[in-house]
Amino acid sequence: MKPATDTSEGHHVVVIGAGFAGLAAVKNLRAKGVRITVIDQRNHHLFQPLLYQVATTILPTSDVAWPIRSLFKHRPDVTTLLARVVGVDKDARTVHLANAEPLTYDTLIIGTGARHSYFGNDEWEAAAPGLKSLEDATTIRKRILSAFERAEVADDPAERAALLTFVIVGAGPTGVELAGIIGELAHRILPKEFRRIDTRQASIHLVEAGPKVLPFFPDPLSEYAVSALQRLGVTVTTGQAVTGIASHGVRIGDTEIPARTVLWAAGVTASPAAAWLGVPSDRAGRVEVQPDLSVPGHPEIFVIGDAASVVQADGQPVPGLAPAAKQQGQFVARLLNARFSRRRPPTVFRYRHLGNLATVGKGAAVADFGRIRLKGVVAWWLWGVAHIYFLIGTRSRIAVALNWLWSYTTGRNSARLITQRDAYFDEPG
Amino acid sequence: MKPATDTSEGHHVVVIGAGFAGLAAVKNLRAKGVRITVIDQRNHHLFQPLLYQVATTILPTSDVAWPIRSLFKHRPDVTTLLARVVGVDKDARTVHLANAEPLTYDTLIIGTGARHSYFGNDEWEAAAPGLKSLEDATTIRKRILSAFERAEVADDPAERAALLTFVIVGAGPTGVELAGIIGELAHRILPKEFRRIDTRQASIHLVEAGPKVLPFFPDPLSEYAVSALQRLGVTVTTGQAVTGIASHGVRIGDTEIPARTVLWAAGVTASPAAAWLGVPSDRAGRVEVQPDLSVPGHPEIFVIGDAASVVQADGQPVPGLAPAAKQQGQFVARLLNARFSRRRPPTVFRYRHLGNLATVGKGAAVADFGRIRLKGVVAWWLWGVAHIYFLIGTRSRIAVALNWLWSYTTGRNSARLITQRDAYFDEPG
Repeated sequence: MKPATDTSEGHHVVVIGAGFAGLAAVKNLRAKGVRITVIDQRNHHLFQPLLYQVATTILPTSDVAWPIRSLFKHRPDVTTLLARVVGVDKDARTVHLANAEPLTYDTLIIGTGARHSYFGNDEWEAAAPGLKSLEDATTIRKRILSAFERAEVADDPAERAALLTFVIVGAGPTGVELAGIIGELAHRILPKEFRRIDTRQASIHLVEAGPKVLPFFPDPLSEYAVSALQRLGVTVTTGQAVTGIASHGVRIGDTEIPARTVLWAAGVTASPAAAWLGVPSDRAGRVEVQPDLSVPGHPEIFVIGDAASVVQADGQPVPGLAPAAKQQGQFVARLLNARFSRRRPPTVFRYRHLGNLATVGKGAAVADFGRIRLKGVVAWWLWGVAHIYFLIGTRSRIAVALNWLWSYTTGRNSARLITQRDAYFDEPG
Repeated sequence: MKPATDTSEGHHVVVIGAGFAGLAAVKNLRAKGVRITVIDQRNHHLFQPLLYQVATTILPTSDVAWPIRSLFKHRPDVTTLLARVVGVDKDARTVHLANAEPLTYDTLIIGTGARHSYFGNDEWEAAAPGLKSLEDATTIRKRILSAFERAEVADDPAERAALLTFVIVGAGPTGVELAGIIGELAHRILPKEFRRIDTRQASIHLVEAGPKVLPFFPDPLSEYAVSALQRLGVTVTTGQAVTGIASHGVRIGDTEIPARTVLWAAGVTASPAAAWLGVPSDRAGRVEVQPDLSVPGHPEIFVIGDAASVVQADGQPVPGLAPAAKQQGQFVARLLNARFSRRRPPTVFRYRHLGNLATVGKGAAVADFGRIRLKGVVAWWLWGVAHIYFLIGTRSRIAVALNWLWSYTTGRNSARLITQRDAYFDEPG
C-alpha cells in the first residue's frame, strides 16, 4: 500500500500488548520493509466487553478470545512472541523480556492496558476478585456456582444465608452487568435445579461509593438501570463506600454483610508502562502522553489505550473504552505510515465518542448517544448487535449469536462449569 | 410408569458418580416414592470420548460437559450434591462426605470410574499428565501450545528441538487420537503462524509397550492407523516400554529422547470404591461384582462402569468403554425398577458390544463391528456422526458440529487458548 522509502527499510516496530489498542495499531500499520514484533504475556487477544458473560456462565472462554498469532497468520511482516516484558531501555532502544533475549526497536508502541486497583487495600483481592483476564472470569464463575453448590449442602442456616449473599463492589457497566446476571441466575435459571435451597432467596448487593449507578450515563438511564436491577432482586446501594472485605463478608460504612462471594468492579490502575519508561504518570498510573500519543522527548515511543492518559484540546480526558483504545491504535499506525512514507504525520489525536452502552439483564439495556437515549428492549437489541459486530471473525459471531439465542430462549446457559483444578474442595470456607 | 408399592415408598437410592454409568442408572430409575441423590465431586458430567479434542484445541470445554443438576431439572425426585465421598459404612448404610453431613441409603450405586495409573511410577505424573478431567484437558492444551510458544522464543537449538518434541505414551484410542491431532497442529495448522521456527520440524513419538497400536482392533486396522499417523509425521514405536519420564525427557529402553511435552495415555486404575467398601478388587483396582453387578453379600450395593470388574458367563471381561458403562447403569435401573414393583429382577448383566471406533486425524478413522470393518473417510464420518448422536442435548450437538465444520474447512481451531492462571510463566523449563 505504502511506497517503499529509505526511512522504513529495516525499521523494527515493537508493539507491547495485543489488546484493542495494540491490535488496531498492527492491523493498520503496513509499510514496505518494516518488521513488526507483537509481544503479549497471554497467547490470546481478549474481547473484554463480553468477559463478564464468561464469568456468568453465558459464553465459553473460546467465544471471547483469539490466539494472537492466528490473527496475523497472513501478515509475514508480523512476528508474535508470548513473552513478559520486565523493562525498557530508552537509550539503547531495547525491550527486556523475562523469558527471551532482549529485543531492540526503532519504534515502540505500548498498549498494556490496566488491571484492578483496590485503592491501597491489596489484601481485598483474595476475597474479591476483579475481572480482567480469562482466568479472572473462570475464577468468578467458579465462585458464583460454588456458592450455590455449597449452600445446597450447608446445614447451618447462617452459613447458608452467607453463601447465598453476593456483593458486587462498583456500579459501572461491569458491576451492573454482573449483578444483573447473578440476579437472573438466582431468580430465573437455577430455582428448578436445587432441592434443599430456594435460590430465589439469594441476596444480591450492588454497592457504589459514588452518588449513582452507571456514573457516565445521564440520570434517567441510571434510574432505569436501578429499577431493572431491582426487578431481578438486586439491592442497590449508592453513596456508601466499602470499608472492609474479607472471606466472611463485607463492611459497608458501619454495616457488616456476611457474604461468601464478593466481586470487585470498582477501580483499575494502569499497567507498569510508566515504571518501565521512567516517565511521569497520573494518579491512575497512566503515562501522560503528548497530543500525538508519543512520550515527551521520545517521538519513537507511543503509549496508547488504557495505559495512557490523554487529555484532549478541550481539557476532556479520553475515556478508558474499547473504541477509544482502537482509535488510538489506528492513529499511531496512520502517524507511522505517514512518517515512513515521508508524508506529514498527524499531530493531534482526536477522540470520536460513539456512545455508551450497558446491559442489565435479558431485554434490559441502556444506550446513550448524546441526543439519542434508549432504554429497555430496543437498547438491548442494539447492544447485542453492536457487540456481535465488533467480535473478531465469522466463527465467533455465529457462536456468540447461537449461545445467546440458546440462553435467552431456553433459559439454559452453556458454560456453567466449575473448571479450575481442585477448584471446589481446596478453597477455604 | 411403575405402580406404587410398599417396598419403594420412602426408599433412598444414593448414586455416587455422574459418569456414563451413574447417569444411565438415574435416567432409567423411576419408581413412585423413591428418592434419588446423585453425588459427584465435579459439577459436570463429562463426555470423555471427546475430551482429547478439548486437549488439542478443537472443542471448548463447554461442548463436552454439562452441569449435572441441569440434567435433572425436571426430575423432582433427584437431588444433586457436589460433594466428595470419603467412605462408606455398609452396616449403617451411610455414605460419609468431606464437605457435608453423612447420607444414609437404602440402595447404593457406585459409578466412580477410573483415573490414570503410572504402574507404580507416580513421580511420572507431574511430567506426563493424563486425560480424565476438564482440567487435565486444559493442562494438556496448555503444555502443547506453550511448547510451540517457547520454541519460538528459544535461542538454543537443542532446547528448541526438545520443545518441539512430543511423546505420547500408550497407543490405545486416546494416544492415537492425541498423536494424530498434534501431528495436524504441527504440520497443517500452525506452520503459517510462526516466524522463527518451522513447526513441521516437530518430532511426535507415539510409544506403545505392547506389540501394536490400537490393541483391541484387528491387525489390518491397526496397520492402517500406523500409516495414517506416519502421514501426519508421527513416529510410531511398538514393543518398547517407557522406563523413565522426567521434565527433560523420556527414556525408552536405553534410549533417551529429550522432550518437554510428554502425555500419558497408557493406563488407568479404578477409583477407590473397593477401599470404601472394604471388598476385594482386581489388579486394576476394580470391584469384583456379582453377575447382577451387586457387591457379594450386599444386594443393596451395586458397582458399575469402569469402577467394576465384570466377567461375563463366557469368561470374557466387559471392556471399559462408554457403551458398557451405560448398559450397566441401565441394567441396574431395570433391576431396581423390578425390585420396587415386586417383579422378578434380571439376574445376569449381558454386555452387548456395539463396535470399536477410533480416529487418527482429519478424514482418517477405523471402525470395527466384528464382520464389518471400515477405515479412512467413511469410518471418519461414521465416527463423527456417532459421537454427535451420543452428545447430550441439541445445543451441544449443534455446537460440536459447527466447531468441527469450522475446524475442518478453515484449518482454524476454536479453542487454542492457554488459560490457566500464570500458566505459561510459572512453569519450570
